[in-house]
Amino acid sequence: MPTTPFHDRPVFPRGFRCASRNVGLKPHAKDLAVFASEIDCAAAAVFTRNHFPGAPVIVGREIITHGRLRGVVVNSKVSNVATGELGLRNVRRMAAAAAAELGTAPEYVLVSSTGVIGVPLPIDLIERGIRGIAADLQDDPLVGAEGIMTTDTHPKALSASVGNATITWVAKGSGMIEPNMATMLSYIFTDAALDASTLDRLLRAAIDLSFNMLSVDSDTSTSDTCAMLANGLAGAVDETAFVDTLVAGCTRMTEILARDGEGAKRLIRASVRGALNNAEAKRVAKSLVNSPLVKTMVAGADPNVGRLLMAVGKCFECTIVPSTTDAWINGHPVVVGGERLDFEDALVRDTLQADVVDLEVSLGVGTADARAYGCDLTAGYVEENAAYYSS
Amino acid sequence: MPTTPFHDRPVFPRGFRCASRNVGLKPHAKDLAVFASEIDCAAAAVFTRNHFPGAPVIVGREIITHGRLRGVVVNSKVSNVATGELGLRNVRRMAAAAAAELGTAPEYVLVSSTGVIGVPLPIDLIERGIRGIAADLQDDPLVGAEGIMTTDTHPKALSASVGNATITWVAKGSGMIEPNMATMLSYIFTDAALDASTLDRLLRAAIDLSFNMLSVDSDTSTSDTCAMLANGLAGAVDETAFVDTLVAGCTRMTEILARDGEGAKRLIRASVRGALNNAEAKRVAKSLVNSPLVKTMVAGADPNVGRLLMAVGKCFECTIVPSTTDAWINGHPVVVGGERLDFEDALVRDTLQADVVDLEVSLGVGTADARAYGCDLTAGYVEENAAYYSS
Repeated sequence: MPTTPFHDRPVFPRGFRCASRNVGLKPHAKDLAVFASEIDCAAAAVFTRNHFPGAPVIVGREIITHGRLRGVVVNSKVSNVATGELGLRNVRRMAAAAAAELGTAPEYVLVSSTGVIGVPLPIDLIERGIRGIAADLQDDPLVGAEGIMTTDTHPKALSASVGNATITWVAKGSGMIEPNMATMLSYIFTDAALDASTLDRLLRAAIDLSFNMLSVDSDTSTSDTCAMLANGLAGAVDETAFVDTLVAGCTRMTEILARDGEGAKRLIRASVRGALNNAEAKRVAKSLVNSPLVKTMVAGADPNVGRLLMAVGKCFECTIVPSTTDAWINGHPVVVGGERLDFEDALVRDTLQADVVDLEVSLGVGTADARAYGCDLTAGYVEENAAYYSS
Repeated sequence: MPTTPFHDRPVFPRGFRCASRNVGLKPHAKDLAVFASEIDCAAAAVFTRNHFPGAPVIVGREIITHGRLRGVVVNSKVSNVATGELGLRNVRRMAAAAAAELGTAPEYVLVSSTGVIGVPLPIDLIERGIRGIAADLQDDPLVGAEGIMTTDTHPKALSASVGNATITWVAKGSGMIEPNMATMLSYIFTDAALDASTLDRLLRAAIDLSFNMLSVDSDTSTSDTCAMLANGLAGAVDETAFVDTLVAGCTRMTEILARDGEGAKRLIRASVRGALNNAEAKRVAKSLVNSPLVKTMVAGADPNVGRLLMAVGKCFECTIVPSTTDAWINGHPVVVGGERLDFEDALVRDTLQADVVDLEVSLGVGTADARAYGCDLTAGYVEENAAYYSS
């Protein structure tokens, strides 16, 4: 796959704009964002597999069956999860309030909420605060990205051209992240002309290689949502080129989310090759990025390579043969045939100081490969999460 | 099950003794222990399911097929894992050195090693240091427990009477602990008369309810070993009473290991009932004690109860029905029918300060139950593991 040239500063595709505000859910920071197309879009979305989906996910699954959206409204601070019937009513009120601003019907607006679980959504604040937001709509995706942040340290948006069209990614997420069928909250906008069923197929395939291979902490959120809107204003695109760019952007956004994992200092990419099949390649790659002992090893830049073998070996149900297992850290061979090499400790220790740590494992039992994305585990993660609810 | 009266201070069954020494693997602390019976014992053992078992585990699996042991020799600091043929030869040399001291053959001595992975065992130091250790053998199990500590903050031993017999547990472990078929290192001694196949059956059943439900950090060690030795000096015992005491002691030792998890301040017990079957009850209970966000919630004494639902709900393959799901923290109801109760925050926050935090979840879809054991996640865990190899 050729390297995708991402724009230096993210832009929207034709016809998309966004706005964000503080409506009083947080003391000062922005807590509400609207993303809108000037015309109706073909749309697809995937949601969390958690058994306790938030009210916005329950309603979103209904809405997306139509395959059409005009826009998305998102609040941060309160996730509207475990809130029962009241929660569902509040989602519909939030959709109606945004629809009135965008001049469309509530069923054309996807609602997402992110933040603390089990607290009623302050719907009155949202209804009051959203009034007049249509007048704020503007062209910078980062403005919308700012409105959906929770513990993120920076707003996350990205764009790239594909033929005459543009694809733009906006996302948030830094903790409670091991998405399954979607990431925390991620929205993809394009002016390419694609129908809803094609969008759905391309989105699921791209997510499988990117967001679904991300884990900050092995915890799967109840709010995970990834939606793609295509308004067609740029006309048809070459599907192969579109897929390449879509996958590249989803992968880049996955790395951005992992790198900004709560408390994280380093991005970890775990590449597994020579696995028996895809499922086993993914399982082993995920085991590496999820292992607290691998994560703390990277945090401490301590080349305790036995932990790589431990994390591979605890995939009980996978075909693992010690004598064919090799491993590398940032390109330096550290394990051959299941045995620790007598490598130059200082050299590997040095390379572990890098911003990106590549762990590679070759299993030597097949031809399947996979890559997973994660981050190191620091005291910052613990501090951030020991008082999340109260703070 | 009646409450088992553990002895105030652990003692050995008739005919068992132990000794420990510093042989130079660590700068000053004890690093070698021997446990011995004065006559041959019936024996059973279970080992790690990690695909990269240490050399002592590979040899141990061979040895235990005979169903007879005279003693156990254990070193700490270096685990002799990922060390190839040399590692296997070193295990046999270590067994021979201990056997010479105990007046038996090497195949009657079980060898265990714990510590860093991928470093050659300093066998010369062990052979030299063990000489004359037979003269040190004495009656206090804590002396042996001290010799096998790694990051443990205290030696771990326990004993109880059952009829005329005694059962004594000695264990170590505080990190890289989610055992599967065994715990880190755990030895159980009894003077009850039981044959090897009975021991094997009773040991596996007890482990299933105790050590296999323990997780400090979801990482499965390459050295996990749990062995039981019965020298028969107390004669026959009532099997039901023996099993009750065996399970009670394994459970108590599991709690002691969890409570001493690296960096831990609190023991977490997660009880799940009303599950569809045992496998699902165990899966959900393990998910609760393994969730970093549940663990940090307990560390921060922050009743962010949505995280309990998140951790239950991410067990995708289990039967979870939000409307029948209830939860309690230390006896206080916090979730009813999948919705967060409006409980008294200060009260629950207060109870989370306790040394033991009981999380209970009722799934309401069946009759199976399970309990898992874990600990909170603190900055201490991160600090300890970011520099384990170097320190």
